[in-house]
Amino acid sequence: MRQLDEIVEQGVAERPFTYEVGDATVPGVLWRPEGATRPTPLVIVCHGGTQHKRSPNVLGLARRLVRHLGYSAASIDAPNHGDRVADPELARAARQDLERRVLDARGAASAPRTMPRDETAWIASHAQAATELSVLLDQLAADGVADERIGYWGLSMGTMIGLPFLASEPRVRCAVLGLACLAGWPGEAQRREAARSITIPVLFVLQWDDQLMTRDAGLDLFDAIGSEDKAMHVFPGGHVDTPLYERDAYDVFFARHLGA
Amino acid sequence: MRQLDEIVEQGVAERPFTYEVGDATVPGVLWRPEGATRPTPLVIVCHGGTQHKRSPNVLGLARRLVRHLGYSAASIDAPNHGDRVADPELARAARQDLERRVLDARGAASAPRTMPRDETAWIASHAQAATELSVLLDQLAADGVADERIGYWGLSMGTMIGLPFLASEPRVRCAVLGLACLAGWPGEAQRREAARSITIPVLFVLQWDDQLMTRDAGLDLFDAIGSEDKAMHVFPGGHVDTPLYERDAYDVFFARHLGA
Repeated sequence: MRQLDEIVEQGVAERPFTYEVGDATVPGVLWRPEGATRPTPLVIVCHGGTQHKRSPNVLGLARRLVRHLGYSAASIDAPNHGDRVADPELARAARQDLERRVLDARGAASAPRTMPRDETAWIASHAQAATELSVLLDQLAADGVADERIGYWGLSMGTMIGLPFLASEPRVRCAVLGLACLAGWPGEAQRREAARSITIPVLFVLQWDDQLMTRDAGLDLFDAIGSEDKAMHVFPGGHVDTPLYERDAYDVFFARHLGA
Repeated sequence: MRQLDEIVEQGVAERPFTYEVGDATVPGVLWRPEGATRPTPLVIVCHGGTQHKRSPNVLGLARRLVRHLGYSAASIDAPNHGDRVADPELARAARQDLERRVLDARGAASAPRTMPRDETAWIASHAQAATELSVLLDQLAADGVADERIGYWGLSMGTMIGLPFLASEPRVRCAVLGLACLAGWPGEAQRREAARSITIPVLFVLQWDDQLMTRDAGLDLFDAIGSEDKAMHVFPGGHVDTPLYERDAYDVFFARHLGA
């Protein structure tokens, strides 16, 4: 793991890094309490589609976990996102397409969906991200950043990546998932199997008027998750309308499972 | 308002009282921070069917609101409940019937439902309780216990009472509701209209395998509530299986709207 310059701001030490997984160089960011010398609880924060490792919601959540709970947080650019965008024109088109859909009027769950151009590559990119996150855990454990207190937070594409990641990664103890569904997307059967195999505590977020899925499809993923200890928080509004105060619930959830 | 002996325990002053509303004498309990001399935020806690003003969940929540948030809490016996049971034999039968249903296996939403024997009296008892709670607010304001920081918590029958209460009572600023539905019960149209007229922030609790209603009926009530700022927390399990940790969410909810 190659560490770049650290910036400290209001008690939060932010340290960009890169590491290698096979042929890929993965860029990431680690946030820690300033001056921390021992492992703390760690939350892996995974961004959504068209976002990156330091998108405002990722950054806000990571800093908050450090400041409110004394945790560490880590985030990477998923394949084809952030610094790993191979074709900027294609990335821009994907962002515009997503923006067009989520800015639709409320309840426009029937807005035409653009399916991935290459379904196999799309599924493989989530599996690749899951592998990269496991390697990241290896490294953070080796560096004395993480111990056994590990959580995951990933909504939307962060859940598409979270399902294979959590299904294959026994070190994660609890997860915030949501804003995603199984039905109608490529790899549905695999993802459903992954969801059923998850047994850690899960907090699942659903937007009642999500433009990217039907209500039934969202409820179906909550149902599919194998955990006995799971909760679903539902809010009116579209895909990007989850109220900021829900971050209070993330704090409470992680503190309950990883300690304060 | 006639105040009975006060008991103080671990910082919580508990004061039983009675007051008159028309021909009815209503017994209630007030919980306050020990030694409080000024108004604090107040939560009206309304018990469920077959319960009473000091049932364990009511008592636990009230004490917690005092200890964690420095609030006051008040609770009354609803008509035909607690000290107001006119026919103990009938009350015992109702309790046994409810217990039989909620102890059914998970997902037994189709368990045969016992409808109220006298539908008109059943609806009227909720309206009566709503009136009694408004009179209680008058008294607590006059006594310097409450100011404008007032919340409501009532699940199951507490929501059946909460709907007419909140629809007619502008002093309440936020409410926790749930474990109830509109569909198929007497007075459905009235209650739906009451739900639509509610515009304060609402936290709504739904049990995914509630033996007393279908999922769709529970979701429908959440949908019907007029508030823009509303959230639904869904948990696996039956009518009485809401996890105890959900009380953390009540704390956060009330603190957000009534202050800490």
